[in-house]
Amino acid sequence: MNVAAIDTPALVVDLDAMQRNLLAMAGFARERGLRLRPHAKTHKSAWIAQQQIARGAVGVCVQKTSEAEALAAAGVRDLFITNEVVGDAKLARVAALARDVTLAIAVDSALGIDRLAAALHHARSRAGVFVEIDVGHGRCGVSPRAAATLAGSVVAHGLRFAGLQAYHGRAQHLRSAQERAAAIAAASRAVQDALGALAAAGIACPLVSGAGSGSFVLEAASGLWGELQCGSYVFMDRDYADNAALTGAPRFEHALFVKSQVMSRAADHAVIDAGHKSHAIDSGLPRVWGRDDLQFVNGGDEHGILRGAALPALGETVWLVPGHCDPTVNLHATMLGVRGGLGRGVVERIIAVDARGCIT
Amino acid sequence: MNVAAIDTPALVVDLDAMQRNLLAMAGFARERGLRLRPHAKTHKSAWIAQQQIARGAVGVCVQKTSEAEALAAAGVRDLFITNEVVGDAKLARVAALARDVTLAIAVDSALGIDRLAAALHHARSRAGVFVEIDVGHGRCGVSPRAAATLAGSVVAHGLRFAGLQAYHGRAQHLRSAQERAAAIAAASRAVQDALGALAAAGIACPLVSGAGSGSFVLEAASGLWGELQCGSYVFMDRDYADNAALTGAPRFEHALFVKSQVMSRAADHAVIDAGHKSHAIDSGLPRVWGRDDLQFVNGGDEHGILRGAALPALGETVWLVPGHCDPTVNLHATMLGVRGGLGRGVVERIIAVDARGCIT
Repeated sequence: MNVAAIDTPALVVDLDAMQRNLLAMAGFARERGLRLRPHAKTHKSAWIAQQQIARGAVGVCVQKTSEAEALAAAGVRDLFITNEVVGDAKLARVAALARDVTLAIAVDSALGIDRLAAALHHARSRAGVFVEIDVGHGRCGVSPRAAATLAGSVVAHGLRFAGLQAYHGRAQHLRSAQERAAAIAAASRAVQDALGALAAAGIACPLVSGAGSGSFVLEAASGLWGELQCGSYVFMDRDYADNAALTGAPRFEHALFVKSQVMSRAADHAVIDAGHKSHAIDSGLPRVWGRDDLQFVNGGDEHGILRGAALPALGETVWLVPGHCDPTVNLHATMLGVRGGLGRGVVERIIAVDARGCIT
Repeated sequence: MNVAAIDTPALVVDLDAMQRNLLAMAGFARERGLRLRPHAKTHKSAWIAQQQIARGAVGVCVQKTSEAEALAAAGVRDLFITNEVVGDAKLARVAALARDVTLAIAVDSALGIDRLAAALHHARSRAGVFVEIDVGHGRCGVSPRAAATLAGSVVAHGLRFAGLQAYHGRAQHLRSAQERAAAIAAASRAVQDALGALAAAGIACPLVSGAGSGSFVLEAASGLWGELQCGSYVFMDRDYADNAALTGAPRFEHALFVKSQVMSRAADHAVIDAGHKSHAIDSGLPRVWGRDDLQFVNGGDEHGILRGAALPALGETVWLVPGHCDPTVNLHATMLGVRGGLGRGVVERIIAVDARGCIT
C-alpha cells in the first residue's frame, strides 16, 4: 500500500528514520562501553524492542507489570520494570512472569521489598532488584543515604540486589543545555552519595541504570551510570526536538507522524481530522511537518485547527509531529511502518502496539 | 468481585450514579418535548448506548465513521455522524454502513456533498444529511447564510436534507452561567439566521440538532433546537462539575472514576499508579474523590503525585474523578461497572469500550 492510500488519521513510522535513530543510539552506547536498555514505554512494541536488541540492547525497560507481560508474550526475554509495585495481586503476576523471562524490578520501600520477596518466594522465581533513589525528579525513590538500608533489606530477604535505579525525568525536558547539565550534575552527586552509603554498608553495587533521551550524554560522561534507559530517541517527538542539543549527542530524526486530512475549510482556518484522541497533548501541541508557517491550534478530541497565510485545501493531507511520542503511541492499536519517505513511500509493516493500554 | 479486589489503575463506572444521570436527562428531554440523541463519543459503548435508547433516546451521535461502524457492529441501529467526512475511502464506508443502519451525517462543503452523494449512489444506500453551521465555536460549519446554498445542493443531489447541525463546543466549558447564556444566545441568532435563509430559499428544515452537557438547558429554552446531543452528562467529569449550574438544569453526579493505589511515599508527597495514560488531562488534572484536602500534581504518563497534610499510606486506594471523561474512556479497553458504591460495591458488569481508538 502506498502512503497516499493510508486512511486518516493514522500513526505512521518512518522506518528509514527510525533505523538511523536506532543505529545512532546503539553506536553511542557501544563507543562509551555502556549497556543500552531502551525504554519500551515509548513504543510498546515487541517488534521494535527486538530491533533494538538486535542492534546490541541488553533488553528493554517497561513501566508497568502488564507492559512486561504483553512484551514477554510477544517474545521479549529480558525486561526491567523501572517502577515500584506494591499490590499483592500484581506482585504475584510479577513473580509468575519472572519464571518465564529475565526480569528486574525497582523498589523504594521496606513494605515493597517484603511483599516482592514473599511473592517471589511463593512462585519460586528470581528477579533482579534495583533500589530507586530520587535524583531530583521528586517522584518515586528514596534519598541517597536510605539506599543502603533498602539494599540491605533486599539482600537480607535473599533477593539479588541488581543496583540503583536513578532516573531524572524532569531533567529531560529542561530546554537549555546548561539547565540539563546542572540537573544531571546534581543527580550525579545523589548517585555518588548512594554509592558511598552502599560502600559504607559493605554492599557492592553492580550497576547504576537510568538516563533519558534528553540527558543521556551527561549521564554517560559522569562515569557513574552503566546502563542507559533512553526511550524517545527512537521516534523523537516535538518536545524533545525543542531541546537545545548537548555537545556530543547523536542527532535523532523525527520518525513518528500522524497522517491527517483537511476535513473542513473556512476563510481563516482549516480543520483536520486529528485531535487529541490521535496525538497526546500533555507536552504541548503537535508541529505541522514541513509547514512551519502553519500554526496548530487545539481543536478538541477529534479536530485540529490550522491557521496561517497559505492554508491547505479541503481534502489535502497534513502530517503532524506529535508533542509527546509515548502517550501518542498508547492511543493507537497499530503503527504503519513506511519505507521510502512520507511522500512516495510504501507501507512495509503494520507494527502492533502490543502493550497498548497496559497500565496495571 | 468486590470493588476492593479491582487491580489498579482501572476505570470504574458507578452504575447507580450513571442510572440516575440517564434518568435525569431522559426526563428533562421528555418534559420539554425534545428528542434526545446522546453523544456516544463520551462512552464509546454499545451497552451504554442501549441504556440510553431504552430510556427514550432516539439513537446516538458519534464523531467518527469507525465509531459508527463499531457501535453498529455491537447492535446500535440509529447513528448520526455529527462531523464531516471528505475522504472517498471513508465515504464508501459511510455509504456501506448506511445500508445496515439508520444513518445521518453532517456536511459543510460542496465538495463533501458531491462526494457523499456519489458514495451513497454507488452503494445504493440512503442517509440523512445535516448541514453544519458554525454557531460560535470557530471550527467546522458554514456561516448561517451559506446553509441554504448547501441545503439546496443536498436536495439537488437527491439526498435527504435532515436539518441543521448546530453545536457550540466551546460554550460548554465557559464557567459562569452568564457567559454560557451569552454564547448560546449568539448561537440562537445564528440558527435563526440559517432558518431564515432556508425559508427564503423555500427549503423546509426538519430539525435543529446540537447542544452539550454544559449548555443544553439554554438550547432547550430557545425553542429552536429539536434534538439534544449531550454526552458527558452520563459520567459528569471534573471539568463539567466546575461549571456554575444553570437554572433548571438537572443535577448530574460523578459516575466515572479511576481507581488507583499509592505505590510510593515520601515525607511530603504520595505517588499513585495513575498518570495520564490512565486519565486524559487536556481539560485539566483529576480531582481526588472524597479528599478535597489532597492536591493532584501531574506526575507524568504513569504516575500521579499527591500533596497535602494527611497523605494516604503506601498501598492505600485513591479514587480520581477525571478532568475530561471522553478521552479518558478512550484510553481503556473496558470500564468496570460497579453496584453499591465505590466503598463496598461489587463489579456487576464489564463494559466494553467498543469504539475505543476509533479515530478514522
